[in-house]
Amino acid sequence: MATTLPRATTEAPVRPAIIDCDIHNELDSERDLYPYLPARWLDHLKTYGTRGPSGASYPRFLNRRNDAHPPSGREPGSDPAFTARQLLDEWNVAYGILNPLTGAGSQLNPEFDAALATAVNDWQVAEWLDPEPRLRASIILPFEHADLAVAEIERRAGDRRFVQVQFSGRPREPMGRRKYWPIYAACEAHGLAVMSHAFGSGGGPITGCGWPSYYIEDHVGPAQSMQANLISLVVEGVFERFPGLRVVSAENGFGWVPSLLWRLDSAYALLRDETPHLARRPSEYVREHVWFCTQPIEEPERPRDFLRLVEQVGADRLIFASDYAHWDWDAPDTALPARLPDEVRRKIFYENARDLYRLPDRAG
Amino acid sequence: MATTLPRATTEAPVRPAIIDCDIHNELDSERDLYPYLPARWLDHLKTYGTRGPSGASYPRFLNRRNDAHPPSGREPGSDPAFTARQLLDEWNVAYGILNPLTGAGSQLNPEFDAALATAVNDWQVAEWLDPEPRLRASIILPFEHADLAVAEIERRAGDRRFVQVQFSGRPREPMGRRKYWPIYAACEAHGLAVMSHAFGSGGGPITGCGWPSYYIEDHVGPAQSMQANLISLVVEGVFERFPGLRVVSAENGFGWVPSLLWRLDSAYALLRDETPHLARRPSEYVREHVWFCTQPIEEPERPRDFLRLVEQVGADRLIFASDYAHWDWDAPDTALPARLPDEVRRKIFYENARDLYRLPDRAG
Repeated sequence: MATTLPRATTEAPVRPAIIDCDIHNELDSERDLYPYLPARWLDHLKTYGTRGPSGASYPRFLNRRNDAHPPSGREPGSDPAFTARQLLDEWNVAYGILNPLTGAGSQLNPEFDAALATAVNDWQVAEWLDPEPRLRASIILPFEHADLAVAEIERRAGDRRFVQVQFSGRPREPMGRRKYWPIYAACEAHGLAVMSHAFGSGGGPITGCGWPSYYIEDHVGPAQSMQANLISLVVEGVFERFPGLRVVSAENGFGWVPSLLWRLDSAYALLRDETPHLARRPSEYVREHVWFCTQPIEEPERPRDFLRLVEQVGADRLIFASDYAHWDWDAPDTALPARLPDEVRRKIFYENARDLYRLPDRAG
Repeated sequence: MATTLPRATTEAPVRPAIIDCDIHNELDSERDLYPYLPARWLDHLKTYGTRGPSGASYPRFLNRRNDAHPPSGREPGSDPAFTARQLLDEWNVAYGILNPLTGAGSQLNPEFDAALATAVNDWQVAEWLDPEPRLRASIILPFEHADLAVAEIERRAGDRRFVQVQFSGRPREPMGRRKYWPIYAACEAHGLAVMSHAFGSGGGPITGCGWPSYYIEDHVGPAQSMQANLISLVVEGVFERFPGLRVVSAENGFGWVPSLLWRLDSAYALLRDETPHLARRPSEYVREHVWFCTQPIEEPERPRDFLRLVEQVGADRLIFASDYAHWDWDAPDTALPARLPDEVRRKIFYENARDLYRLPDRAG
């Protein structure tokens, strides 16, 4: 594997190297996966289609940037060469982490879900990782079925271009529950992070009080689901049981992190008898084990409140993410609402992700 | 009604007068309600008991302060004279707002729910409001059934000692949905606030990803439900439709308010075509229409971060609440984690609630 940054042009890059932790590699259509599916499941896909829990899918959710249509005529985000030019070259992306959102992971037929995840991962290797050495990827998993998920992790773990596994933002149970522990054990053993990407649905409503009416409620709602997942991961003792585990929150924001940890610590002070398996305050586990992608950023009215928010969450726990090529993406030069000290900026845009994902340095 | 503060002792009070916006008046047992139930529903209660959605009830939830057992032998919080002595006298409470949590409002039989709510309100009048002029109360409602709820509002609206109606923290639908609008119309017409008190359950899990394992998750979780309710109230256009409506959030914290509004405003900037009934940014509605009770307070590690949080939420939108006599209550002298400027303190402990509930002044 290449360990130095290939230059797309002969000009020296004017921008400092960055790592983009949330790039969406898209299917032009599900036909892209046909070559990677065994006959039985290809037939299944053609006959029965995909079928997951409903209620969290909107056409708008997957809208793309208007300028992201490749000349090839394929859908935005589905042309590796165009993504390389428009995103990696233009912004001097040293590493980009791929997060395909394809429906694999939420199919109601478990074996089909596993076959689809395997196909997506094979497609990522053949069409994205092999041609483009700047890319890394999330392993797509049938995460509701730990045995099948662990088998897929074992299949990929030898390929270090896979840096993490992907959960949806709303699995069927809160992420700390023991049905998912074998997945965490496998990730810890192989040095893979566990990433929870906003959106998706386990079948229930996104709120604790039933189904909301508007897309904007599902657009803002993932922060609440991630709060529940984070609480669950902590109080179930996942980080005690898997001390090497690293968790990444993608597209859930982070403005809510400080107040959640204040509240959780004070609840823990009152209720620790219920969770004797916890040796430390909840905030300590989060500060040690959890990273947050920047996009979308909650923007305070006063820029210096943003600086304080970064301090509270931890400048070493934020990692830049563009969400390319979705319509609400963040360009690297305008993503942050305030001018940060250079060393903090370098951490968020490069060093934190390099260390988190143990990537060979390419900044020099 | 008295408009000056009755003194319980001949000593001048050493503490400044305060308003406590969340006092729990408890039943010693459901037998307390027998005198207030018509024969049919008394028989129903004795025969069938109470029956609501399950999944959010823990013995611990209703634990009381160890020192709150009245000499009468009744349960803590259920003896009006003792509450008056231990809370109102001791802390110079000029007004205390009662919030009984009795199961009325969540009974699955709608007519029984309405009868139980009426009984609880009659019990409040006879045993709490009539004997103690410092007390005010929330109207208990069969809030899932707007027609029955409006009838109860009409029954109480002439008694100005009822200052608001009570919703649970997790109704069956997010609070903005139109099934609840007739209730809001009645509250607006009668100058009553709408209070959402943490806890309760509409029957679904508290998280967007299913049922959590621990009580601490339900203890910390109400903040997420209130976030969903607040988003819903705003984006459904409730505050456009009912411009006089005032909403009170009780026992949900408020540290999450600023980042939620930042996120919601920026989502609105992108998605306003979906909610053309909104004329203003979401944060403007919240800042104008919503008040937050202090208890429980998220305590930042740096006291000056708490001062900034108060500014961000709005010093005129916070109202003191003790949560007496629950085990995790806040004493007025230690409730706030930082020393606030005197005028801010006076707002939070007295002036904001006086203005919100339009109470005759008793501070002087």
